[in-house]
Amino acid sequence: MYDALKNITFIIFDLDGVFYRENQSLEGTKEIIDYLNEENIEYCFFTNNSNYKIHRYKEKLLTCGIEVSEKNIFTTTKLIEHYLFENNLDNIYVLGSKQLQDTLYDKYTQNSINPNIVILGMENNITLKDISNTINLIDKDTQIIAANPDKLIPVKDGFELECGVLIDIIEEYTKKMVQVIGKPSPYGFDTILSKFDKQKSETLMIGDTFETDILGAKNANIYAGWINSGNKLPYNTLDFDFMSFKSLIELKEKIKEAKR
Amino acid sequence: MYDALKNITFIIFDLDGVFYRENQSLEGTKEIIDYLNEENIEYCFFTNNSNYKIHRYKEKLLTCGIEVSEKNIFTTTKLIEHYLFENNLDNIYVLGSKQLQDTLYDKYTQNSINPNIVILGMENNITLKDISNTINLIDKDTQIIAANPDKLIPVKDGFELECGVLIDIIEEYTKKMVQVIGKPSPYGFDTILSKFDKQKSETLMIGDTFETDILGAKNANIYAGWINSGNKLPYNTLDFDFMSFKSLIELKEKIKEAKR
Repeated sequence: MYDALKNITFIIFDLDGVFYRENQSLEGTKEIIDYLNEENIEYCFFTNNSNYKIHRYKEKLLTCGIEVSEKNIFTTTKLIEHYLFENNLDNIYVLGSKQLQDTLYDKYTQNSINPNIVILGMENNITLKDISNTINLIDKDTQIIAANPDKLIPVKDGFELECGVLIDIIEEYTKKMVQVIGKPSPYGFDTILSKFDKQKSETLMIGDTFETDILGAKNANIYAGWINSGNKLPYNTLDFDFMSFKSLIELKEKIKEAKR
Repeated sequence: MYDALKNITFIIFDLDGVFYRENQSLEGTKEIIDYLNEENIEYCFFTNNSNYKIHRYKEKLLTCGIEVSEKNIFTTTKLIEHYLFENNLDNIYVLGSKQLQDTLYDKYTQNSINPNIVILGMENNITLKDISNTINLIDKDTQIIAANPDKLIPVKDGFELECGVLIDIIEEYTKKMVQVIGKPSPYGFDTILSKFDKQKSETLMIGDTFETDILGAKNANIYAGWINSGNKLPYNTLDFDFMSFKSLIELKEKIKEAKR
């Protein structure tokens, strides 16, 4: 399986848990990027988060010793913007963070009565009333998309509910399907590949979360590498072949070996 | 089936949709109560709501021309108090309305770190963060009870999520069972019957909602009568025998007929 690394010309990296965790830069971040630059292997970064602007991630990568263009960083907010543009959609309603609202309402018309599309993102201050109001806006013609399907994220003192809980409630009460833009849906991957003009057979996803990064790569039909940085693998990994690396250092060594 | 009315000595009435809807008194409220008083048939009122104090319901019934003692009115808040008392529980945490919190914290110790029991009620201002915090309080020894299992209630401009959505989320994320106190759980019915010293075979539940009132009567093994005041019956009523009445007037006539 590691032989496949020989033909890789493009890597999509997850951010949190791969390049940093909270405010801690992880092992090998500068080494892998320096190596990819030398070898002319292209790369980008793809996070399921819709709560921060792209420049925040650029700054975070600088603390890992890496300087990248904002064009190489994909958040679900950026991919949602692309979805709206590509599908020629306007009259939108956003249930999510202020950042997601500000970014989208800046370019698209806010419609809080009969929107063409409802966009779900995560925000701790969303109330049950906000969710009820959103359900009441949705009729048979309303599209619904969500930033990401994660249900829980670990935080300092336990867990926090994530966007997946909104998807569950909205799907149950509207009996409509919510389309997910972030990992593991193929939409984000396909968009990124088309922007970089890359084939699936030359692309590798590197992440630390099975349910989003590795399953996402499977759904998008690209190669997958799992960074063993603390996350557990689920019991059933669905017989899906993926590579495993202790760190970005090992990833670099394995690519070097394959290309020898 | 209507023959059973002959032996009824106790009626449990739902409130909203049976005696009033919003601020509108419904047909036959005074007539039925006057008749039951004449015939020495006892009765009480049982609502799944945990947001108002008992005296609010007493006042509401006065606008229907009926004067009853607060002892004859059961809210889920009152039944939760009974549950805590009966099970000798203290150190409680309440996720619900200010009324539910005030009433319970007045008599029981609020414990926001490791409560013995977590109590769920509905409140529009509950945030995803509040729900996350509650999940983080629950460990293997924490009991969880909920005021009512309703998922949606109709409001002027559509629907509002109800306590059932909290139950769904908490059960999914804690993998623990939530015990429901309100209808259609038998707990409330059994408590009321024991307080009035009544047998199941002499008791009738009258309500307008199949999923709470009629199913609740089935679960508690008492007779059930459905008031056809606008709510739809579900397609599948589970082959459960229940009586049907156009209004409280018809209920009075049918009892009269059976007792003749």
